[in-house]
Amino acid sequence: MTVIIVLRETATESELSQVLNLADRVGSDVRRHSPHLLSLTGDLATVDQAVAHLPQVRHVAGVPGQYPCASAQARIGLPSSVRLGDATVGPGGFTVIAGPCSVESRDQLLEVAHAVRDCGAHALRGGAFKPRSSPYAFQGLGRRGLALLAEARRATGLPVVSEVLDVRDLDAMLPAVDMLQVGARNMQNYALLRELGRLRVPVLLKRGLAATIDETLMAAEYILDGGNPDVVLCERGIRTFETGYRFTLDIAAVPVFKERSHLPVIIDPSHAAGETSRVLPLALAAAACGADGIIVETHCDPAAALCDGKQALPTHRLPELVDGVLQVARAAGRLTADRRAGDERELVLAGAPVGPVAAARVVRR
Amino acid sequence: MTVIIVLRETATESELSQVLNLADRVGSDVRRHSPHLLSLTGDLATVDQAVAHLPQVRHVAGVPGQYPCASAQARIGLPSSVRLGDATVGPGGFTVIAGPCSVESRDQLLEVAHAVRDCGAHALRGGAFKPRSSPYAFQGLGRRGLALLAEARRATGLPVVSEVLDVRDLDAMLPAVDMLQVGARNMQNYALLRELGRLRVPVLLKRGLAATIDETLMAAEYILDGGNPDVVLCERGIRTFETGYRFTLDIAAVPVFKERSHLPVIIDPSHAAGETSRVLPLALAAAACGADGIIVETHCDPAAALCDGKQALPTHRLPELVDGVLQVARAAGRLTADRRAGDERELVLAGAPVGPVAAARVVRR
Amino acid sequence: MTVIIVLRETATESELSQVLNLADRVGSDVRRHSPHLLSLTGDLATVDQAVAHLPQVRHVAGVPGQYPCASAQARIGLPSSVRLGDATVGPGGFTVIAGPCSVESRDQLLEVAHAVRDCGAHALRGGAFKPRSSPYAFQGLGRRGLALLAEARRATGLPVVSEVLDVRDLDAMLPAVDMLQVGARNMQNYALLRELGRLRVPVLLKRGLAATIDETLMAAEYILDGGNPDVVLCERGIRTFETGYRFTLDIAAVPVFKERSHLPVIIDPSHAAGETSRVLPLALAAAACGADGIIVETHCDPAAALCDGKQALPTHRLPELVDGVLQVARAAGRLTADRRAGDERELVLAGAPVGPVAAARVVRR
Amino acid sequence: MTVIIVLRETATESELSQVLNLADRVGSDVRRHSPHLLSLTGDLATVDQAVAHLPQVRHVAGVPGQYPCASAQARIGLPSSVRLGDATVGPGGFTVIAGPCSVESRDQLLEVAHAVRDCGAHALRGGAFKPRSSPYAFQGLGRRGLALLAEARRATGLPVVSEVLDVRDLDAMLPAVDMLQVGARNMQNYALLRELGRLRVPVLLKRGLAATIDETLMAAEYILDGGNPDVVLCERGIRTFETGYRFTLDIAAVPVFKERSHLPVIIDPSHAAGETSRVLPLALAAAACGADGIIVETHCDPAAALCDGKQALPTHRLPELVDGVLQVARAAGRLTADRRAGDERELVLAGAPVGPVAAARVVRR
Repeated sequence: MTVIIVLRETATESELSQVLNLADRVGSDVRRHSPHLLSLTGDLATVDQAVAHLPQVRHVAGVPGQYPCASAQARIGLPSSVRLGDATVGPGGFTVIAGPCSVESRDQLLEVAHAVRDCGAHALRGGAFKPRSSPYAFQGLGRRGLALLAEARRATGLPVVSEVLDVRDLDAMLPAVDMLQVGARNMQNYALLRELGRLRVPVLLKRGLAATIDETLMAAEYILDGGNPDVVLCERGIRTFETGYRFTLDIAAVPVFKERSHLPVIIDPSHAAGETSRVLPLALAAAACGADGIIVETHCDPAAALCDGKQALPTHRLPELVDGVLQVARAAGRLTADRRAGDERELVLAGAPVGPVAAARVVRR
Repeated sequence: MTVIIVLRETATESELSQVLNLADRVGSDVRRHSPHLLSLTGDLATVDQAVAHLPQVRHVAGVPGQYPCASAQARIGLPSSVRLGDATVGPGGFTVIAGPCSVESRDQLLEVAHAVRDCGAHALRGGAFKPRSSPYAFQGLGRRGLALLAEARRATGLPVVSEVLDVRDLDAMLPAVDMLQVGARNMQNYALLRELGRLRVPVLLKRGLAATIDETLMAAEYILDGGNPDVVLCERGIRTFETGYRFTLDIAAVPVFKERSHLPVIIDPSHAAGETSRVLPLALAAAACGADGIIVETHCDPAAALCDGKQALPTHRLPELVDGVLQVARAAGRLTADRRAGDERELVLAGAPVGPVAAARVVRR
Repeated sequence: MTVIIVLRETATESELSQVLNLADRVGSDVRRHSPHLLSLTGDLATVDQAVAHLPQVRHVAGVPGQYPCASAQARIGLPSSVRLGDATVGPGGFTVIAGPCSVESRDQLLEVAHAVRDCGAHALRGGAFKPRSSPYAFQGLGRRGLALLAEARRATGLPVVSEVLDVRDLDAMLPAVDMLQVGARNMQNYALLRELGRLRVPVLLKRGLAATIDETLMAAEYILDGGNPDVVLCERGIRTFETGYRFTLDIAAVPVFKERSHLPVIIDPSHAAGETSRVLPLALAAAACGADGIIVETHCDPAAALCDGKQALPTHRLPELVDGVLQVARAAGRLTADRRAGDERELVLAGAPVGPVAAARVVRR
Repeated sequence: MTVIIVLRETATESELSQVLNLADRVGSDVRRHSPHLLSLTGDLATVDQAVAHLPQVRHVAGVPGQYPCASAQARIGLPSSVRLGDATVGPGGFTVIAGPCSVESRDQLLEVAHAVRDCGAHALRGGAFKPRSSPYAFQGLGRRGLALLAEARRATGLPVVSEVLDVRDLDAMLPAVDMLQVGARNMQNYALLRELGRLRVPVLLKRGLAATIDETLMAAEYILDGGNPDVVLCERGIRTFETGYRFTLDIAAVPVFKERSHLPVIIDPSHAAGETSRVLPLALAAAACGADGIIVETHCDPAAALCDGKQALPTHRLPELVDGVLQVARAAGRLTADRRAGDERELVLAGAPVGPVAAARVVRR
């Protein structure tokens, strides 16, 4: 079985070496995922007996072998949180990320961005590079779109979330983007995931449309094990037989992700809904079931959108959305009961050191 | 195209005949679904011109051909509601139905039933006849279970919901049961649906685990067209590739059902969850997204349950569940904004006459 | 674990009692499924030691607990076969059942039936009672359809396969039908399955469109455990996300059914195909992968069919179909290599006594 | 609607210009996909009238707008074929590609490669870069694996098929590989597809596990529209609810791909089967239903395989596999009736010029 050893924050290098030596003796496949998280293959009781008494060892636990870093036990059951500009995605809050499917023009983006800021949302989304099923569909403005996103960030103060499609675009994206989104189609593009693991910029990892919950956590593990602790999961609908909407929003994935992992989970109600009228009910469901936020597509003129206008919420309906989700999140106990967990979170960073992340954002290993 | 003609409540038989004659002239396949709802195949504009000016005609509309009675237009866009004992499933409320998966013993059932009543839930569920994948699994107490349900109803005053598997059991069930449940496996058992259409007892129709939203509405149509207007739909999870829980709760089916149909929709969080810990998040999502209620499995001693104990909420957690869903439903605007719709509903009964139903409950046509 | 004990054909009642007594001593839940098949819950080695030495005991094996009668071990790994008029569905042959989706008229049925006989197919299919998603779709001719099927049988000598929807129709169906089909929608209609278990008429059990392979075998078990040994499984396509055809033909279900069960398996290529042009490729795949036959929809005038005409093979293409599947079945080794298994089959009947079935066909227990 | 104009091979540049000018006048979005294939948005009759009379125009047809190059009409209904070393994947043959899941060692690869050649198979598969759900699973030998593949090619004369995961690996792969495989996880990795469109090396495009047939054709279109005409589609199983095997082999995708597209289609029975025992039945089904070949995992010692050993056919069973599929393909009429199509194919190359491809294999645009 896979066993993890969580060290205290205060552990020195020599104390870590001591644990590594003991781990080598009682198990195999010993891995050092971060300065405070080790895993090995071995017998839980044996490992526990060998290291649990050491003062630098905080926690020993058996975990699913394929995602030790993402497992709930890697943070002793405490949920992690991820910085997004001045906001935090995680316990004690409910984060609203909104913006157009794709950046279409300066006017469009700035109008939407101001509406997003004015309604009290926390971050701006917008695609500069668009993955499209057809090679003949609008593919985004590319680097010009990145420049517009940077301008919208300056104008509104909102952090920016945008999708990366190609490792070769990363250098251009990093100055303009606060959180890199991996789309559903690329959830198992391991070349891309490994590259994101080398960065210190938060990643929004969307579940593939036929990916299991465990496969999604393994995809996150590629990033976490690479050294980047800031991953937010996103449930955006899976593919089923039903054709009454676009994708089947798997609302139950939220509690299951929370059982198995410490990572924050947000919901994209727009792609599942397929039509504007269903975005609000799905967003409210997200706020009720324990998700950490939503990412919503909105447009100042949905009928004229170059991409996915049918599911874009008109910007004038954003206040209703934001008020609604916050009221429901509060009623569901999220904005109060979780606050304590949020406070404790600051203290426990094994496997996901939040502190130095923002500063080191564009430093590759 | 299929066109419906909704008559006023006050229409006389001769006024109805007049409309039928006109309908025959401008269309084909003229059907009289209820005293106040006709459908025909024809051109909407032509039909409208022919009959809309008549004082006895309230509404003319094009509808999906396969479920005119269940269509939203059959009630002019107003949601219907269904009596369940003293409670009403529909707008302006949020109905909680709770009880054991199966009736196991007098002690078990009465203990659970009192807990259900004491937490403020509206109705008691309990299976006397259990459909089981394996012929060797516990199949329910049968008629003895019905007697115990009747006793629990007397003891608590709660109306009873129980599943019917066989048309030959109906006579035994009617005296003990206030709402007949059709399980997911029998959603397309048309012999059973037709028989339920002949009754005047409310039906809880569970969506099949691979049934589309439209197929579910067509199954309801079998009952409605048979003359029984009291159908409540139930989303209970569909079958997908994900194995992290038991079934994929299709939360988006709620707004889609509501767009397409006037029928109330409740959610069964228990079968989807598969495990107790996920029942509450899914129930809260149901309350947030616009469902009319939930049906939940609960047990006084889940570990000893003869069936589905793993997903049964312990009865001592019922108060938390009921408080939670009511708070979220209120935050989502359900318990206030919808009240007006509930009042108007009393006036408009075409296609689903609520009034005389309860009285005539056990009278077959 | 569930253990089965297969007795020799020659075992007397007192020899059976002796085994039952021993089984009671070493295990629990002892069940007598047929005169030659027992199952119990116990330890395999212990049961083996207790009874394997007895001359009347032929075989002791551990099996999946939920379908001991249907398990491959219940026939010591030998496939069973089921009589269909003069034909046999099972090893050493490849059975072609063809006919219209529904019986529409005397002329239509007789024309199709003669075409079916003339192309060398083995049996005639035709629906008198049609399960339709919409209550307003053509529901079959009912009892008049049965009379026409009986006439077609007399005229062509072909055995008849027809679907049963309602236990109350069985008495009318038995004189006209040689094999009762349970449709996909009713695969878990246990009231119906139990009733079929009491008959001695072969059953064609179609897999539900979201039923797992094991659930299908459990549905068969309801019939087998009831005492009716003659069940043929039918894979007819499952429901998935793909919309390029009607249902996803699960060709791999054939080898998996064969690993787990002794029951014959046929394939319905028509419902999966959705369009005529794909029926032949799917039928050939069935013949190649080890299926025991196919059931195909055909019509003398597909464009005029009242039901599913789009997927009906025109009767004039039947010879091409039959020649094709027989050639491919032969190339796949089916019509030669399996013959020996077919011969042995005659000798080994535990759990599925083929012999007395035809004679007792319409005798209910 | 999207209309394509197929020019004759002999058309000169000025004749092409003439057609382009006319196309611009009668439609919009005029695209030149290859020297002999144009598409535009317009009215079919109008376009036909404008250009069909020109001697350089061979064919005008309406097509699905999202994959004009991949559409069947782009080759006037004639199937295309793709060179693979000395072999050809396409009509008139049945191609067997076999080899280990991953290259593990020199000994392993050479032993398997010789077995593949000796049984009469046409090409060797082998993964040097392995996409694995878990970051901790064996990820392939990388560039050392490529060197071993090149050695195996020299030793056996077999062309090599291997998967590409990262555009940055292409330069290293091209000298060692005759056909680049895009795995299911990367089917919508458009950065990768675009890069493959710039090459002149054949591509084996595996269908994503939740990709529709049309989405797969759009993924192929990315490559074709980029200028690389040599794409072979591969059905390898989709994800459904069934857990009795690994993936659901969608056998009906073969005839549907063939209706909609001219591209060759092969089947991977190994990943769907999940277990060795089911590989042969699925391979035979592939040969029967009209596929152009199979790609099969085989290993000299499956129990010791580092990856997917459970589904690997032991090399000693390869002759049985190859004989079986060829016999069934012949019985299904494939190896004779299609030969004429194969001959005609040589003449008609619009949209997929086979001739100059092999020579220009490693020349990027």
